[in-house]
Amino acid sequence: MVFKISPLMPQNIQELSPLSDVRIATAKAGIKYKDRTDLLFIVFDKPASVAGVFTRSKCPSAPVEHCRASLPHGVARGVIVNSGNANAFTGSKGKNTTNEIICAAANTLKVRENEIFIASTGVIGEPMDASAIVNLLPSMAETAEEGNWLEAAKAIMTTDTFPKLSTRTFNCGGVNVTINAIAKGAGMIAPDMATMLSFVVCDATISSDMLQSMLSEAVQGSFNSITVDSDTSTSDTLMIFATGKEHFPCLKSQSDPRYGIFVKQLSELLHELALQVVCDGEGARHLIEVNVSGATTDKAAKTIALSIANSPLVKTAIAGEDANWGRVVMAVGKAGVEVDRDLLTIWFGEHRVAVNGERDPAYCEEKIAAYMRGKHITIRVDIGLGESSTTVWSCDLTKEYVMINSDYRS
Amino acid sequence: MVFKISPLMPQNIQELSPLSDVRIATAKAGIKYKDRTDLLFIVFDKPASVAGVFTRSKCPSAPVEHCRASLPHGVARGVIVNSGNANAFTGSKGKNTTNEIICAAANTLKVRENEIFIASTGVIGEPMDASAIVNLLPSMAETAEEGNWLEAAKAIMTTDTFPKLSTRTFNCGGVNVTINAIAKGAGMIAPDMATMLSFVVCDATISSDMLQSMLSEAVQGSFNSITVDSDTSTSDTLMIFATGKEHFPCLKSQSDPRYGIFVKQLSELLHELALQVVCDGEGARHLIEVNVSGATTDKAAKTIALSIANSPLVKTAIAGEDANWGRVVMAVGKAGVEVDRDLLTIWFGEHRVAVNGERDPAYCEEKIAAYMRGKHITIRVDIGLGESSTTVWSCDLTKEYVMINSDYRS
Repeated sequence: MVFKISPLMPQNIQELSPLSDVRIATAKAGIKYKDRTDLLFIVFDKPASVAGVFTRSKCPSAPVEHCRASLPHGVARGVIVNSGNANAFTGSKGKNTTNEIICAAANTLKVRENEIFIASTGVIGEPMDASAIVNLLPSMAETAEEGNWLEAAKAIMTTDTFPKLSTRTFNCGGVNVTINAIAKGAGMIAPDMATMLSFVVCDATISSDMLQSMLSEAVQGSFNSITVDSDTSTSDTLMIFATGKEHFPCLKSQSDPRYGIFVKQLSELLHELALQVVCDGEGARHLIEVNVSGATTDKAAKTIALSIANSPLVKTAIAGEDANWGRVVMAVGKAGVEVDRDLLTIWFGEHRVAVNGERDPAYCEEKIAAYMRGKHITIRVDIGLGESSTTVWSCDLTKEYVMINSDYRS
Repeated sequence: MVFKISPLMPQNIQELSPLSDVRIATAKAGIKYKDRTDLLFIVFDKPASVAGVFTRSKCPSAPVEHCRASLPHGVARGVIVNSGNANAFTGSKGKNTTNEIICAAANTLKVRENEIFIASTGVIGEPMDASAIVNLLPSMAETAEEGNWLEAAKAIMTTDTFPKLSTRTFNCGGVNVTINAIAKGAGMIAPDMATMLSFVVCDATISSDMLQSMLSEAVQGSFNSITVDSDTSTSDTLMIFATGKEHFPCLKSQSDPRYGIFVKQLSELLHELALQVVCDGEGARHLIEVNVSGATTDKAAKTIALSIANSPLVKTAIAGEDANWGRVVMAVGKAGVEVDRDLLTIWFGEHRVAVNGERDPAYCEEKIAAYMRGKHITIRVDIGLGESSTTVWSCDLTKEYVMINSDYRS
């Protein structure tokens, strides 16, 4: 199946500068895809700090289990990512495959096994042969070069229609630091999962503890606030690495003024990357932003926002460019959070469509119809009961989504 | 938009016998549809007991609020149902419309207002004019006849592609009693909601308390175990009425041996009707039955079953006749309930596809592919941790679902 490039692709793909001591190699291992790279090896020539967040699935893949178990050691020397096979629900074989790859990479780099991190994305339940990957690692480690970020982003794609990259260079306590990041998103083809993978590398000197704390904070408004179809992969992985930098004293406390500066930049970068993932949701034709305000608690705001963002009826309405605010009311109502129907106010973009429990008296179909033809649709709901607010992002549900996902596996 | 009749329609529409003192009239009020009936008036010539369950939406419609408030009185003399306008999110106007209709019906039948029940289904947020309905009530009350159940089922349809009826006649403590029921289902056309309405009438003599208790029990394995797209209407209404019968002493205690007999029959009838609703889900081409066994609690079993039954990726796979058990694992994992990946066993029909955390060694693609071409697909998952089990029903997610629901409102 050939995928059309998403109409929501950013106009420019960002160029990422090389980072010192971060060498990248890609290769064609032939795991599933032909004539394209499907293997990425990132080598840290000096020990890097590391942190990560992973899928909440109760059935995680073998690679996710390895990464979780290795994090407490707090040191990374290499990252291996393959596309084409998720090595998920592959039983003891899958665990062995992961171990073989980890072991080979550790030997190649002469480092400890818990300093190698791994992620796999693609087919689920299909045994994966380690040898195709293992055999390539020595030459990849040798030829890996600083730079190559675009190639890295391309090698981890499955049904993504464009590579996803983001970068920030900023002054952090008098020293310029750079954060580079790649991601792959929720493009799915049967039986691939909507695995979201993202790898972030910065050249600042930050303890693993602080990295974890900053990542957990920055993920809330970005990767934890997007949804394509409410389905959660067995393999979702977001990791950050800090290689360290001369003249940048180690950031190891939240009271360090650089903490806030770094978190802000990291949050913006992850947010940009997360939106790229949504914009490449299968069959997406519209980016949907859902703002909920006036909720009684942050949790209530997010529950309501996700109820709207995941509603098939809301998502199909946006696909049809239909300002169907009745379905928004429905989605608010089904969220299970206490609301007062007659206090709801709903806007599409700047157009207020419902107020005081009924259609806005000034409702103008023509103006709203024009707005709905845009690519970026904002749905705003004020609950009228409190002070909490949140924003989440989603995409529309189109015929193409169903076509992509109902295609035969064979 | 014209809807093709669902390929899952039952082969025969059941004929319902007339019930004494239950008179039915239908009419063309022209609320939205042209050239078809859209108004139903059921008249109980003697006071009937009544019970009901309603949408859990926090934004219910005005008719739902009226019914909830009237139930404690425990007596029904009339039911009015219109299709074409849900009178939901219509503010104080909507409440006035409901009150006007209730008042007119009560005057016509010379009964109390809280003895009239009402339901509306159709467009949301559109003010509804009471007069078209009010003007028809006197003549409808006069011409209403015993029987007419098929006409009743047709008058409440919105985008249903077939009328939904079910009946049972059985011996209950030495007396033959009959339960008749109609429903409308989850056919949707923008901006109609997936409102589920069902009205059940029996000729047994049962107190309202007992009716409520029996209905609450019987709804669990039927209407509370089906899902089309996880979206919940503002107007879902299921009501039961008991007109009473000579030589049938009033059933007013759970210890009455007739209680169990009646609940069993009611459960079967509601189950049959609920499956008709799923089989008429928009664009449905396959009925999906999800059995979850071996869960630690009933609640865990249902959470997992609904996670599978609502997963867009599982539903699109079934549409594509693809035995994609990897997506079933994903849906189990995302349910948030504690599971052990390596204890899961998964079947499609009789075909075991996964066991011990990986694909079944005896997996045979050909046999399973043949099974997946059937109309009724059973997904069975054993969690391997406990004794609790449950079954829910859903339908597949097809291109037609998206087409129906992304069509312009105008």
